[in-house]
Amino acid sequence: MQAEIVTIGTELLLGEIVDTNSAWIAQQLTTIGLNLYYTTTVGDNLQRISEVLRYSVQRSDVVITTGGLGPTVDDMTREAVAAATDRELVFDEELLQEIACFFARRNYPMTQNNRKQACRPAGARVIHNPVGTAPSFAVEHNGHVIISLPGVPFEMKYLMEREVLPHLRERFGLRGIIKSRTLRTCGIGESMIGSRIDDLMRLSNPTVGTAAHPGQTDVRVTVKAESIAEADALIAPVEQELRARLGDYVYGVDQETLSDALTRLLLERGLRLALAETVTHGELSRWLSETRGAERAFAGGTTLVGEDALLGSLDVPAGLVGQYGLASQETADAVAEAVRRAHKADLGLAVIGVETSVSTEAPEGAPPVYFSLAVDGHIIRGEPRQGRTGVSGRGWLMHLALDMVRRHLLGLQAN
Amino acid sequence: MQAEIVTIGTELLLGEIVDTNSAWIAQQLTTIGLNLYYTTTVGDNLQRISEVLRYSVQRSDVVITTGGLGPTVDDMTREAVAAATDRELVFDEELLQEIACFFARRNYPMTQNNRKQACRPAGARVIHNPVGTAPSFAVEHNGHVIISLPGVPFEMKYLMEREVLPHLRERFGLRGIIKSRTLRTCGIGESMIGSRIDDLMRLSNPTVGTAAHPGQTDVRVTVKAESIAEADALIAPVEQELRARLGDYVYGVDQETLSDALTRLLLERGLRLALAETVTHGELSRWLSETRGAERAFAGGTTLVGEDALLGSLDVPAGLVGQYGLASQETADAVAEAVRRAHKADLGLAVIGVETSVSTEAPEGAPPVYFSLAVDGHIIRGEPRQGRTGVSGRGWLMHLALDMVRRHLLGLQAN
Repeated sequence: MQAEIVTIGTELLLGEIVDTNSAWIAQQLTTIGLNLYYTTTVGDNLQRISEVLRYSVQRSDVVITTGGLGPTVDDMTREAVAAATDRELVFDEELLQEIACFFARRNYPMTQNNRKQACRPAGARVIHNPVGTAPSFAVEHNGHVIISLPGVPFEMKYLMEREVLPHLRERFGLRGIIKSRTLRTCGIGESMIGSRIDDLMRLSNPTVGTAAHPGQTDVRVTVKAESIAEADALIAPVEQELRARLGDYVYGVDQETLSDALTRLLLERGLRLALAETVTHGELSRWLSETRGAERAFAGGTTLVGEDALLGSLDVPAGLVGQYGLASQETADAVAEAVRRAHKADLGLAVIGVETSVSTEAPEGAPPVYFSLAVDGHIIRGEPRQGRTGVSGRGWLMHLALDMVRRHLLGLQAN
Repeated sequence: MQAEIVTIGTELLLGEIVDTNSAWIAQQLTTIGLNLYYTTTVGDNLQRISEVLRYSVQRSDVVITTGGLGPTVDDMTREAVAAATDRELVFDEELLQEIACFFARRNYPMTQNNRKQACRPAGARVIHNPVGTAPSFAVEHNGHVIISLPGVPFEMKYLMEREVLPHLRERFGLRGIIKSRTLRTCGIGESMIGSRIDDLMRLSNPTVGTAAHPGQTDVRVTVKAESIAEADALIAPVEQELRARLGDYVYGVDQETLSDALTRLLLERGLRLALAETVTHGELSRWLSETRGAERAFAGGTTLVGEDALLGSLDVPAGLVGQYGLASQETADAVAEAVRRAHKADLGLAVIGVETSVSTEAPEGAPPVYFSLAVDGHIIRGEPRQGRTGVSGRGWLMHLALDMVRRHLLGLQAN
């Protein structure tokens, strides 16, 4: 059983809005064991939409479209589905009544344009939409089915959950499920993981895959099964083996972030962390302060750019900064202790570099970033890292910094 | 000239990450006058990727792929492009040297897996990637071209801007240009703008359009022309008229952010701003600290969650917070002055609310967020605003806060 999604709208193609519907639909289809193989985005052009749909409904058992069901001239999904399945477009008096009621309930005027929304391909099964003006429909074609939903996320989700998913389960006798479990790692690269678990990545059910993110790599175990219990039973031994091979590089599972894991450790130990950051520009503060439990574990963050701000904000000896420079291990050490005191915290973390550490065009020329952790009257130093550009470079530095604190709390050696 | 994008990766299909690359690529292609007609997402399956590419390179002049160039077994773009264009996959010794150098510069071990990244379809033009380990390439096929780029946004963007766009312009002799000029406004809503410039929004070349963002509305003038000079001449009178109608709501043009505009004003006046924030979670610190000139205009930011962190970090009377509550105008006033002193700044900005101000599901129940600006020994208060949920709510609060400082520096009344 194979499914695909076709999202319709020039605004999606031009990048004016980012499609979030497809990701959500993909997750929903997964839960009923329907494999999503493709998503396609196409603009508001009748011929191109029709062609895409004709091709899609041939190769996939289920095609779900979103968008193009509105009342304006650039809404063409109805026409395109009719053309792709060699049907007429028919006007449905009952549908018009439904739309009229929707407007009446809200005291909105109905325009002539809205009549268009009462059209549907001949023989289509109507999916009634009580939460919007765009009626949806399903069309059977050579044993396959096209289901057309509105692009408004709220309406689409409503119809998917209440109408489409139950219909698909029944229509295709779907009993199986797909379940994933993701181990989240830090401090080990994707290729290194790959070489440690190469044999496991060749399994077929469950499958094991990796995905690299800035500073962090996911190892995902995905299984097809008849039930949740069976899925769990198939995942468990593989997870156990992965954990044995990856050890304390694994900091969490599924949606858990490194900040979640670190905050959990801080709460368990009753400790509060403060931090000062330069080149990460407040992102570490954001990350920690948004984490559940922050009001007890996060004592505050200080964001600084440049020497003036540093000396004006924290009790750091000007002579020291003058001697070693802002981007130096010695300054990072002093800042870690100063910010610990400034926020009356148990631990003080400093991530210190100069602006060019992350903004320079040539990564190999970037000056290093320094990490220090002040704790119990002494300083733990992280390995200085050469800065990297852009958002991913920042994410990498943030993971290095938090993982250093995590490893300290767990009594592990710095990485 | 017709282009399409193929994004490759099971994690995209399963909705584990949302594709933002396509939107960015779409915008870039628009600037060189290349029409994007389709984007397709396909999982890590050699046969399916190959089929999609075979179909795509037939219907489109330019096919851009992202993803699947990594070192692990589920990275299959190289093989798929070769298969779709009936070529062999060849090992490129020079590419291997390049990858080896990349690792050497970073002192990382190169694994056996990385050898795979030195393969490319026979006859492919290599696009050298100095910022990552995934070499990219372009393959000509029956007068059309497939260009394969990494999925890591930072690397993809780097290669698009420096290599791919210039190459496409030359390869396809693209001469016409599309140019836009964007006036950026704050403090006035999209519908209010619409009613002031309704007649201008009916022009055909240039066109005038509006786009609402959290706390900020863009007015974009877009023109098609043969040359930059012609484009500028067509845009100028329309921009002048727009400025006459929108007055001091316009704070900047094109990519200039409100933080850019504010920092410019601070530098002109030789003033330094410090800030303390709760519900915006360090985002205001990030924004200001990332702005060019921050090392002279931004004295530092303090990010806090909850009363303990506030009282531990800033010199604010505990009694006052106890009496009025953390989310109160009185507390915001005290915090503004305290953070001004803590960072030895000329101006102190406080954006203070409690966590539920932004995280509650029902915005109508959210407690307000308070704005205070400490300056020259007195306090300027912004209008308290009811919190709003999510990322857009935060963006709205951030713009309100910075616009308050901007208007103060310009001698305008608070909005």
